[in-house]
Amino acid sequence: MRRFVVVGHRAVTTPKFSLNDLPGGAGRMDIIARCVNASLFLSHDLRRDVEFFAILLGEPTPPVTIKFSGEHVRYLSPDERSPAALIKKALERGIPVEGEAEATPGVYISKRSFADLINGMDNLVYLHEDGEDIRSVELTGNETFVLSDHQNLTPEEEAVLEAKGAKKVSLGKKLYHADHCIVMVNWETDRR
Amino acid sequence: MRRFVVVGHRAVTTPKFSLNDLPGGAGRMDIIARCVNASLFLSHDLRRDVEFFAILLGEPTPPVTIKFSGEHVRYLSPDERSPAALIKKALERGIPVEGEAEATPGVYISKRSFADLINGMDNLVYLHEDGEDIRSVELTGNETFVLSDHQNLTPEEEAVLEAKGAKKVSLGKKLYHADHCIVMVNWETDRR
Repeated sequence: MRRFVVVGHRAVTTPKFSLNDLPGGAGRMDIIARCVNASLFLSHDLRRDVEFFAILLGEPTPPVTIKFSGEHVRYLSPDERSPAALIKKALERGIPVEGEAEATPGVYISKRSFADLINGMDNLVYLHEDGEDIRSVELTGNETFVLSDHQNLTPEEEAVLEAKGAKKVSLGKKLYHADHCIVMVNWETDRR
Repeated sequence: MRRFVVVGHRAVTTPKFSLNDLPGGAGRMDIIARCVNASLFLSHDLRRDVEFFAILLGEPTPPVTIKFSGEHVRYLSPDERSPAALIKKALERGIPVEGEAEATPGVYISKRSFADLINGMDNLVYLHEDGEDIRSVELTGNETFVLSDHQNLTPEEEAVLEAKGAKKVSLGKKLYHADHCIVMVNWETDRR
């Protein structure tokens, strides 16, 4: 199972956001939506061996973790509004007292924080410009790739990754949007 | 100059479409919008050495060609609505009697067809699963990469490319969305 974890530092944790204003009122939820697309879509197919996690850290009740399962997700289209609408539905369903709840098929909501999530995972890869070049790195297909949105990971978030021994891996000298990074990682993994 | 040409077989040629329904009423304009993003965006920067062309073939008055210049474009954000809104503005401006007109900074509209456009270009690359692997192909940074939307190029469109000696180049055995293909091509070119 390949996993992508994206931190949405301002992505809202209320369902009361407009699908017509994902960048503004929803706290750059457009980035999260594009990352869902990049993680899960092939042409006329879904990547069933991929899971995507968004950690929403915006107001009013952070953190909230939303998981998309490539194997189980339904009602997902590639346009930005579609994953955003599924996130909205998950937030409408609300956070379960414990564990995670399936809000719509293949979309799950929980109260997990970044540290909760990362501490439960192995084979962590932190995509970072100072890391080892991805084309020289061994990839088993069982990695969890961690990315940030338009803001860098905080020192506290980086410390969580470091404590878990996450490997720093680079995509090159240019800096890319998170969704573009995910496309590159999926492509690189496809070619191994 | 690197160029991307994407054919929107059903993408509408009227400005009377809703930014809230790009996949449906606008004829998969969401695909075109994501391709603009994939062509032009770096993190906190634009690719100033890239031009993007969308050929809109939907009703009511096809063809219409919209060009985005990475060097000159303004008011462009990465979310899907933003490039779609600039295309809408270009269609509102209307098609000039001859040549191309700048509708908003760095966004141009013309009546050119796929054949008109391709016949004026050189170093053509047709991204196709039967082509030579891109990682083995020489790239000068002056190629024009041609892609289709969710439908394949028609035999007539393929004939135009063949007559111009377009080189078939493959991204691998899996089939990808057009915007993901553009991310891969940009990444591959960055690494040369």
